[in-house]
Amino acid sequence: MIGIKEIASYIPENRNSNYDLKEKFEMDDVFIEDKIGIKGVAVKNKDENTSDLCVNAFVNLEKKLKIDKDEIECLFVVTQNPDYNLPHTSAIVHGKLDMPNNCACFDISLGCSGYVYGLSVIKSFMIQNNMKNGLLFTADPYSKVIDYDDKNTSILFGDGSSVSLIGENPKIKIGNFTFGTIGKGYENLICKENKLSMNGRAIFNFAAKNIPKDIPIVLKKNNLNIEDIDLFIFHQGSKYIVDTIIKRLKLDKSKVPFKVEKYGNTISSSIPILLEEEFNNLNSNKIVISGFGVGLSWSSSVLFK
Amino acid sequence: MIGIKEIASYIPENRNSNYDLKEKFEMDDVFIEDKIGIKGVAVKNKDENTSDLCVNAFVNLEKKLKIDKDEIECLFVVTQNPDYNLPHTSAIVHGKLDMPNNCACFDISLGCSGYVYGLSVIKSFMIQNNMKNGLLFTADPYSKVIDYDDKNTSILFGDGSSVSLIGENPKIKIGNFTFGTIGKGYENLICKENKLSMNGRAIFNFAAKNIPKDIPIVLKKNNLNIEDIDLFIFHQGSKYIVDTIIKRLKLDKSKVPFKVEKYGNTISSSIPILLEEEFNNLNSNKIVISGFGVGLSWSSSVLFK
Repeated sequence: MIGIKEIASYIPENRNSNYDLKEKFEMDDVFIEDKIGIKGVAVKNKDENTSDLCVNAFVNLEKKLKIDKDEIECLFVVTQNPDYNLPHTSAIVHGKLDMPNNCACFDISLGCSGYVYGLSVIKSFMIQNNMKNGLLFTADPYSKVIDYDDKNTSILFGDGSSVSLIGENPKIKIGNFTFGTIGKGYENLICKENKLSMNGRAIFNFAAKNIPKDIPIVLKKNNLNIEDIDLFIFHQGSKYIVDTIIKRLKLDKSKVPFKVEKYGNTISSSIPILLEEEFNNLNSNKIVISGFGVGLSWSSSVLFK
Repeated sequence: MIGIKEIASYIPENRNSNYDLKEKFEMDDVFIEDKIGIKGVAVKNKDENTSDLCVNAFVNLEKKLKIDKDEIECLFVVTQNPDYNLPHTSAIVHGKLDMPNNCACFDISLGCSGYVYGLSVIKSFMIQNNMKNGLLFTADPYSKVIDYDDKNTSILFGDGSSVSLIGENPKIKIGNFTFGTIGKGYENLICKENKLSMNGRAIFNFAAKNIPKDIPIVLKKNNLNIEDIDLFIFHQGSKYIVDTIIKRLKLDKSKVPFKVEKYGNTISSSIPILLEEEFNNLNSNKIVISGFGVGLSWSSSVLFK
């Protein structure tokens, strides 16, 4: 049984405070605290690259358990802001971490749904190739492409990274998945000429329409009812979208964390960062995870302790 | 049993002739024909994007068999030259081809080894997610990043794309895989500030050292001997590298095609373009495929008709 053995994450220390931007962007405290729910965003140092964010997450993983690098058989990075377009960032991370030659590396290009997709990719790949230990990284530093004069994006997206050790005898088992794409909406979150732009309203509507429909489907695929679930970790896009999903699914709010006030929406890292916090919580045994965003795309699954 | 049901490819019509560059790059006919083995490289139109190359390959696939788009459950694009860094090109292709919403899409960032990795990714993903029909695209138009004053790259790399229909009752079954990465060598093929650069000598040495070692390993993983193999499709990097691998493995030259004289090294499309030619050849029942390049990375497998 292949699953998640451990998770570690890294969030750069530097913050841009949204309170400092109240005048510039004509925002009040209610907007910051109740609507977007993000008081500031984490911003990496300019000389920290995507591969460095991955290495820093790995350093934190090694604080939790000893990793025998020679046993790592695959290493994937979920990113759309790689160090370079070629080579893949996973190869650079492989080199920096001195991983063995018989290790499969590639990047998975996805955004906010990327951790959920990535779990399915690495689980499938390892089972079919008879691998015992693999690493799934997420690191998508939007600060590389954010225009800090753009209210739509600069007050939401923060930098962060995560690494999940995948292998046998896991603490968290991975259930069945749903996947979806609405490619015709791809222009609503796009990076042209190194500048990010987002149609926030369109992305909100996409998520508010499709995620509440998707959760009953993923529950059915895992032979579960909604009341069986202890915790719902939705992609932390904004407080408003998470609150809207809670309302539409009539969920118990105490089962649905929104916890990114201090560092922002870290794209594909938002779910694993929250999952790390819950890793040893004995009260959350069945966890729905659901990621949604760029593509437009979404994916959901159920995790079991 | 999940395997390859059909393959189609697309090579842009426009060519840059290497004979026209003899003086500029101080090359003679022997160098062009016997060393690199590439007389000219295919170059896409400026207004053709990576997703368009994919769509054109799909149009050619539809000439071979009817595709019921509603049955396509996943669509992956292998590329390191996407339309944009975000969203993933697979989502754009999804939109242009009007694929259904319940279709998983992501890009796989890999170069010349990408088709072989991609086959393992899509096969694994489909089996584990109980999917029946998927599409694996390759499209990596290096013309986007080639400096046409750079002899190291401009006379080798051509534009092209492919699509493989993956599903049950395949014409070609997919065996076991090997994978490898030497991340410390990542700077030998890199794109910085939108300009490709390659240390050709280092890439040659990497391939000449590692691929002849890898072939016996992949054969053993598939319970085969080298004489059982009817055809070896190596990544078509240059005539010199393919000839070197033939020599080191003491292969029968007639079993090892080098056929890219007219359009060049099409990166992740080089293997599927040759595989398409062999698709209905009754004399090639057991085929070794081996891709190697950017990362540095490699992957090999055996295909069975």
